[in-house]
Formats: sequence, C-alpha cells, structure tokens
Amino acid sequence: MIPEILRQHDAQFFVIYASSKNANFFYATGFKIPDPAFYMIGDDGTDLLVVHEMEKRRAERESKVKEIASLKDLGFYEILEERKNPSEALCQTLFELIRTHGGRKILVPYDFPSFLSFYFRERMDVEVIENPFSKLRAVKRREEVKEIKKTSDAVIKSFEHALKLLRKAKSCEEVRNEIELFLFKAGFIAEETIVSSGMLSADPHDIGRGRIEDHVIIDIFPKNKESGYYSDFTRTVLLEKNPEIEDMLEAVIEAKNAAISKIRDGIIAKEIHHTVCDILEERGYKTIKSKSGEGFIHSTGHGVGLEVHEEPRIFENEDVIKKGMVFTVEPGLYYRKVGGVRVEDTVVVKANECEVLTKYDDWVKL
Amino acid sequence: MIPEILRQHDAQFFVIYASSKNANFFYATGFKIPDPAFYMIGDDGTDLLVVHEMEKRRAERESKVKEIASLKDLGFYEILEERKNPSEALCQTLFELIRTHGGRKILVPYDFPSFLSFYFRERMDVEVIENPFSKLRAVKRREEVKEIKKTSDAVIKSFEHALKLLRKAKSCEEVRNEIELFLFKAGFIAEETIVSSGMLSADPHDIGRGRIEDHVIIDIFPKNKESGYYSDFTRTVLLEKNPEIEDMLEAVIEAKNAAISKIRDGIIAKEIHHTVCDILEERGYKTIKSKSGEGFIHSTGHGVGLEVHEEPRIFENEDVIKKGMVFTVEPGLYYRKVGGVRVEDTVVVKANECEVLTKYDDWVKL
Repeated sequence: MIPEILRQHDAQFFVIYASSKNANFFYATGFKIPDPAFYMIGDDGTDLLVVHEMEKRRAERESKVKEIASLKDLGFYEILEERKNPSEALCQTLFELIRTHGGRKILVPYDFPSFLSFYFRERMDVEVIENPFSKLRAVKRREEVKEIKKTSDAVIKSFEHALKLLRKAKSCEEVRNEIELFLFKAGFIAEETIVSSGMLSADPHDIGRGRIEDHVIIDIFPKNKESGYYSDFTRTVLLEKNPEIEDMLEAVIEAKNAAISKIRDGIIAKEIHHTVCDILEERGYKTIKSKSGEGFIHSTGHGVGLEVHEEPRIFENEDVIKKGMVFTVEPGLYYRKVGGVRVEDTVVVKANECEVLTKYDDWVKL
Repeated sequence: MIPEILRQHDAQFFVIYASSKNANFFYATGFKIPDPAFYMIGDDGTDLLVVHEMEKRRAERESKVKEIASLKDLGFYEILEERKNPSEALCQTLFELIRTHGGRKILVPYDFPSFLSFYFRERMDVEVIENPFSKLRAVKRREEVKEIKKTSDAVIKSFEHALKLLRKAKSCEEVRNEIELFLFKAGFIAEETIVSSGMLSADPHDIGRGRIEDHVIIDIFPKNKESGYYSDFTRTVLLEKNPEIEDMLEAVIEAKNAAISKIRDGIIAKEIHHTVCDILEERGYKTIKSKSGEGFIHSTGHGVGLEVHEEPRIFENEDVIKKGMVFTVEPGLYYRKVGGVRVEDTVVVKANECEVLTKYDDWVKL
C-alpha cells in the first residue's frame, strides 16, 4: 500500500517523526520508545529507524524495522559541533540521510512536526498526506482482534464489579476509582472513565462527580498495558424510576441494535449513522442535524485499536466498512433539563454481519 | 513573555493545535480534552480556545482561557458543506479566524502539525519557534512544586513497599506490578517502571524482566492522575556482594551528591553535568565524551513536571538554571559485561541551594 502511494505522488519516501505514544509510529515500527524517533519507508525497500545510540541495541532486539541507525552513525554529533543548535543539527542529519538515499520528494503525515517539515521543504519537495498507517490500522489482523477481545472481556468484568457496589457507593468518583483499580490489577489502564449521573450526564464528555442519582452513564475504555489495545463500552444504569430517561434509553437501545444488525463488509459508514438518526428522529428526538445542541449530538462511532479514537469514523462520511474493522456503535441522547443516556458496544466486522466484542445486557436496572 | 516574543518576531499570534496529552496545551489552557483543539494567544490580549461545540460548555466551566468558540460558531459546518474534506474545512475555518483577528504573521511551535502549517504558510507568514510554554513550564509555581512533592512522597512509599518484597519476588515483572499497583491505589499512574537486574541493567532504557540477580535498578516515575504532575526517582539495590557494581555505585552516588551541592539559582546546566562527568572520569570511568557507548552514556538530568522529560535539560547546554526549576540529577554507569547502576533524585532549585524532593538513602543494601 505505501509503495503504491509513493508512486502515485511521485515520492521516494514516507517519513514519521514521533515517539511510540503515536499509534502509527508504534504500529509501523513495533517499538516502544518514550522520545521521538525518525522512521522512513521507501519504494526501494528502505525500512529504516533512526534512534539515539542509547536505544540502538534495544531497537535491533525489539523493533520489527529492517534497519536501525543511530544519530551517532549518521554524523549527528559532528554536525552539532558545527551548528550548536540540536534541532537544526537534527534537521540537517535527517535531511542528508534522505538525500543520500536518493530522496527528492517525501510524504509526511498530517501531524508531522513543522520544525522538520519547514526545513525539508526549503530543500526538497514535501507533501502532507493522511497517514497511510491510519488506514492500514483500521482493518485489524486476527491477533489484534484477539487483543481487543481481551480488553473487552476485562471491561465487562470491571462493569459487573461496579454494579455490585453502585448502590452503596457514596459518589461517582468512588465508582470510577473502583473500576480503574479493578482493571489495573488485571493489567489494563483506564483513565477518565466516565461515571456520570443526574444532570451532569447531559454533557457527554463530562467524566462525572458527586452523588449517584437516578441513573448513571458508565463508559469504560481501558488499554492493555502490554499490547496497548483498547476497547470501549457504555451502559446506562437505572437506579430509580425516571420515565423520560427510560424512554430515551429505549430509543438508543433500539438505534444501537438496528445499526449493529446492518453492519457487514461493504456497508458505507454514513448508512450506519443514518440508521441511528432515523430511529431517534422517528421517536421524536433531535439529532445533530437540528443544530440545537441537544439530542444525539455526536457521531455514531469510531474505530478502536491502539487508540481509543481512530479510523474508521462512523458519521456522515463515505468510508467503506471492511471485514476486520473494529469500531464502536454508541448512540446517545442528551437534554440539559433531563440528563443524558448512552449505550455503546465495540464490534468487529465480518463478511455478512458483525460480532459484538462487549456482549452485555442493554438494559441494566438495579 | 509571549507578547514580548510576538513583538520580537513581528507576529500577532502564537497558536497551538493539540489535545491535552500535549503538556504545553494543558498548561496554557488548563483544559483536559482527548481530541485536538486550537488555541491562540495574541499581543492584543486575545486568549481564545476553539473546541467542538460538544465541548464548549465544559471548556467554559473548566478551562482558564478567556474566550471559548466552537467550530460551529466559526462557520465550520458551512465551509465543510462546500469543501467536503473535514481537514481542509478545519484549515480554512482557523485561517479565517486568524485573519479576522488581524493576523498577518503567526508563530507555531516545533510540533505544530504540518497539515495546518502548510495551509497557513501559503496564505500568511508562519514561523516555527520553540514553544514558549516549554520555557515557562520549566520554572514551577509554588502549587506545582507541591504537586511534584506529593508525587515524590508516593514514589518513596512505593519504593519502600518494593523493598519489602524484593527478596521473595520471583521476577522483575512481579516487583514492577507491585510498585505500579501500589501507586495506582494511591492515585498515581506509573508505566514502564524500570526494575532491571543483572546484565539487562547495562541498557538504561530496558525496563527489565526475569530473575532478580545480584543488584536491581528501580526507576519509578509516575504521574498524579488528577493533577498530571510527575516525579522521578531511582535507586540501585544491592542484594549480593559484587565489588565492581559497588565501586560503580560509590562513584555515581558521589557524583550525584556533588552535583546536587552545586545547584543554585544562576548556575549553568553544563556546570552541573561537568561536575558529574569530572568525578566519574577521576574514578576511571568513561563518559559520553569517549564515544565508546559505555560508562556514563546519557545526560545528567531533565526537567520534571507535567511531562516526565521536559525543560531544562542538564547536559552540555548553556541553559541558566533558575529558582523554581524542578529537574532530576541521575548519573549512571553502564558496562555490557558488568551491568548498570544509577541513582536519581528530583530536586527543586532555591536561591542558594536546591531541595531534594525524593529524599531517601543513597545506599540500599538488602
């Protein structure tokens, strides 16, 4: 795929400069590194990672890149002695590397740092493209689905754990802590887990705080500490009678399941999103089209993998959904004077259907 | 400081596009947000954050930025309808925003994404500069030092917890898990904690695995889940007699304490680094100058705050160390056929001295 893109753009190399916190970098190199490193891939078979010399042996051992070079190997320190400024010396070192490999035009991703791209651009042709690894990552290999399934199983267990203490818990914070601790013990890191109750739940990105009221949105999205793979799951738990909230919940559950039943290889992302919108509108709720800021005010879903938000987006877009993609289906309804509800599953696409990786009852009443 | 920089560069705005995972963004805005947002600060008093409309109310509540605008407020959706491509629509929306505020030249940080900087550059003057917030962040306010002290105290407790089980533990992995779980329960997230023994310890970035041998490097650097502030601490624990390792440890302890005793307001970073190098060389060990890849092969330290590696660097650089800076002092020695040792403290600079935030015995024998 990348050689093809390079040919289309008449470029010799695609390059990344990032640490392994960048999922595309980690996916491309298989290497965990806290500080940024330089990776280049070429139409001539070049597959080269440049790291600090301190990291070279570890990179040779742990990364899946063919060739490792250290800054020292590339003459960085001699250049630094001349230029004094480390970032200029880095620019020059990497530029000379690309040039000696025959690079006349390079492709860089959207998030490529400007200090490098501006330096390169004065000396050769540079084009910014969507990172091809983002697209590659959207379709998961079997081992990746297995990892997301592992995370999903842990999420469900942590949710069941939360349900046991929800009645007794004094606050949303306490429940969040319990969920995150439970997951941590099992080898997963969850941050900003949403346990949001009452009116605060009307804001889908509020993580919640304070007393547990009539209903609680619990949205759990941890990553596996080892493999780095996420899952994402939400249920709205009912603790007291609240007919308005129950009606809203009925609508989002119907919308979620209708959308899930449509998902298969070849469907267009916006068809899934429209399935959700149509059902919610039929039931008299507003969607994002109303521009009112209430009702269903976000997209239907997003890819899940090494990032909790990645490709594909499930919204008004024309992306073709493919077998092996993993994403969320998460309709929600939010009204300032009532509160919010949301249900969310992570699914993997099969040829003629999808499999729900976060299987759990849609209705949760305590 | 930023208005001054703007005037020096004859620019009207400094702009950032990042999520709150970017420490400079979080520091500037005080806003936690998982997806990238746009922040602009001007010499005319402009202090403006642009978020998705879903985040607007939360941003008004939680951020410290003066003015919040949503993409919707700025006409993003009308532009999107015309242009179809969301990233182009974003570029145009933000460009028009800058223009209507009178921007003719903007400054962007090193890591500013290229898709935006290339678009802007075709339409106005764009200059890449080191992020001024990186420099601002280097000098900590009193509340920030308090937060780092809190994290430091938790680190010491987790280290003491590790010592209790080190003799009985079956592997480095077990000790790492225990440390990280202990910290998690206390409200801190530690990842990639180094518990490295035997020959693996010769590689300073290897997190360690397998059996616990004669000595162990334990390097703990968690962040507070709430405030986001890190601390960083290392001790080398001796479990069996090993004269070569003990000699190395004696040298790094002497080097660390000599360096610490020199730190005060006004000292130059490289003077601290040279104090360490001189002592190690006097004792017959190699430093990075030897270019042998053995001995003391990294820098003396790095700033600690919202990032575990931030300004100032303590190396061959000329940075003036100022009161309120918080950084590590961490000499180490690494020999492939012997193993590695390192001791590390996090310190805060005072007028005439520094205060060690991670107070603990240098010699730890079990």
